[in-house]
Amino acid sequence: MARVYNFSAGPAMLPEPVLRRARDEMLEWHASGMCVAEMSHRGQDFMSIAAQAEADLRELLGIPSNYQVLFLQGGASTQFTAVPMNLLRGAASADYLNTGSWSKKAIAEARRYAEVRVAATTETERFTRAPAQTELSLDPAAAYVHYTPNETIEGVEFSYVPETGDRPLVADMSSTILSRPIEVSRFGLIYAGAQKNIGPAGLTIIIVREDLLGDAMAVTPTMLDYQVQAKNDSMYNTPPTYAWYLAGLVFEWLKGLGGLAGMAEINARKAQRLYHAIDRSSFYHNPVALDSRSWMNVPFTLADAALDETFLKEAKAARLTTLKGHRSVGGMRASLYNAMPEEGVEALVDFMSEFERRYG
Amino acid sequence: MARVYNFSAGPAMLPEPVLRRARDEMLEWHASGMCVAEMSHRGQDFMSIAAQAEADLRELLGIPSNYQVLFLQGGASTQFTAVPMNLLRGAASADYLNTGSWSKKAIAEARRYAEVRVAATTETERFTRAPAQTELSLDPAAAYVHYTPNETIEGVEFSYVPETGDRPLVADMSSTILSRPIEVSRFGLIYAGAQKNIGPAGLTIIIVREDLLGDAMAVTPTMLDYQVQAKNDSMYNTPPTYAWYLAGLVFEWLKGLGGLAGMAEINARKAQRLYHAIDRSSFYHNPVALDSRSWMNVPFTLADAALDETFLKEAKAARLTTLKGHRSVGGMRASLYNAMPEEGVEALVDFMSEFERRYG
Repeated sequence: MARVYNFSAGPAMLPEPVLRRARDEMLEWHASGMCVAEMSHRGQDFMSIAAQAEADLRELLGIPSNYQVLFLQGGASTQFTAVPMNLLRGAASADYLNTGSWSKKAIAEARRYAEVRVAATTETERFTRAPAQTELSLDPAAAYVHYTPNETIEGVEFSYVPETGDRPLVADMSSTILSRPIEVSRFGLIYAGAQKNIGPAGLTIIIVREDLLGDAMAVTPTMLDYQVQAKNDSMYNTPPTYAWYLAGLVFEWLKGLGGLAGMAEINARKAQRLYHAIDRSSFYHNPVALDSRSWMNVPFTLADAALDETFLKEAKAARLTTLKGHRSVGGMRASLYNAMPEEGVEALVDFMSEFERRYG
Repeated sequence: MARVYNFSAGPAMLPEPVLRRARDEMLEWHASGMCVAEMSHRGQDFMSIAAQAEADLRELLGIPSNYQVLFLQGGASTQFTAVPMNLLRGAASADYLNTGSWSKKAIAEARRYAEVRVAATTETERFTRAPAQTELSLDPAAAYVHYTPNETIEGVEFSYVPETGDRPLVADMSSTILSRPIEVSRFGLIYAGAQKNIGPAGLTIIIVREDLLGDAMAVTPTMLDYQVQAKNDSMYNTPPTYAWYLAGLVFEWLKGLGGLAGMAEINARKAQRLYHAIDRSSFYHNPVALDSRSWMNVPFTLADAALDETFLKEAKAARLTTLKGHRSVGGMRASLYNAMPEEGVEALVDFMSEFERRYG
């Protein structure tokens, strides 16, 4: 067996210790006589796994007790609908920051249910930076303010949490959650698809302040009503039990690394290492403003796009995979989620340097 | 390691050969250098896994080419909303058969979006039988007819497919799909949560006739629009990739057993063995009419309910687990899904006989 360094934007690498645990427990979890995927979600064994995962996530993120944590299905794209359905609460409009491809999708879906005001946009700059706080034109009547702290495709990350006054701040944290500490009390609602920093695809985590619950639009599907899910501890129907268990193993692994403060140090080193390699070269280029560069997703282009295929082919031969950039941006993209070891970034930087030497 | 016979109604047992394959491939699938859960859903490896799973399911069920197969999230409860949103197609009402707890949930959710006509009900008989074709009072103007071929809680299964003329027949097959051959062309839409006969919780399979697509209600969340999902090959967003892979392993295992004809023979023997043991005893009782008894879920009571706890405790000690009946019905329930081996039923019947000898 020879595992690769997998730079996929998601689904993405999982920590190897997590995979080893899952492998060892596949035929029998503890002395249960069964795989976690075979357990009734109402049984003691799974209930303990579920509760431990939630407790560990609460500890890692420092989630205040007036926030509910939900373990749901459907991905962030389902939340693009659930957010306006649940959070408009009688208001007509919401404010959205337009900072990249995922913001745009969230805005397009919200427009089907609400009047969307774009409170800031960097589209004319091809989404190469996050707007500053002073650029946000917020509407006092907005039901909430939605933004995307990290844009997976453009590699743009906010270096600050927007100040929105009384309006609840809603964040799609799919590609940055758990990469560093955050102050949850600054947010009304946080949602994240699992397949980057949490676990396998098919699990979506919602962290929502309790006072925002209970006023969903009449057309809201019962399964998308946060209040219903909160009252049923995310078990209104059968939850994605095996994904929930794997997420729990990831949380345990993170705690062992020193929690999010420890993870942030590692992530900062990984990102600096790669950006430094890009910036010191005239062969590689990253278009994002220095203060908006993502720790998690690093897009870069080669001086000659005709070399892209060769780069990808030789990288794969060096066991560095899934580096192709999103088709809307082109070039390469290296995603450096929590599970990517520092050695992986080291190997990528070495490969890039050697590639430049031969082709640059 | 000592695996148990797990009679859970779902999530339920998975075939041991499937778990062994998943275990062996956990750190590396084939020569990919990664776990399937780590693969980009747009990459060649996962695309081949996804396509093979769909091809195997199409072969197993004999799905005609004018049907789409979708691999989605959210469970049957999400389909309770998606079905009226997608299939009303301008009509005001739909017909529903009310045959147990899951029918009732489907009806309650559909009432939020449509006028629901109950075209047959066995509620006054406490859901102890399926209605006959002659008892169905169908509305010519109904957009579709919805029923639950197997009621997981009451253990009631239709022994026939209702004839609904031009009205599309919609079936929640969560707890019976793949247990025996079916004629897919009799249905407009089939949906099923995976966690009984398909794979792990968190995957939902939809089989839908193409001419029913493309006329969803305006309020339909994009993620619940069958047309959108069909056009994107179930990859409008990241699908539940690992669950999809496990389902593929289950389909492969089923093909190895001789497909659904082979599985049906085994399932018929398992059910007969248990019902025979119940019927020949005056200590155990199953309330369901003979022609409506489920192959998959067998509820039964003990002559003295005061013995329930002892029964469950001793069964567990004999490595026969999750036999407690649903709280709404009481007593016991043995679910005999595809992955339950005949030896498991044999062991249960032996235990029941010995228990009756000692306590009866």
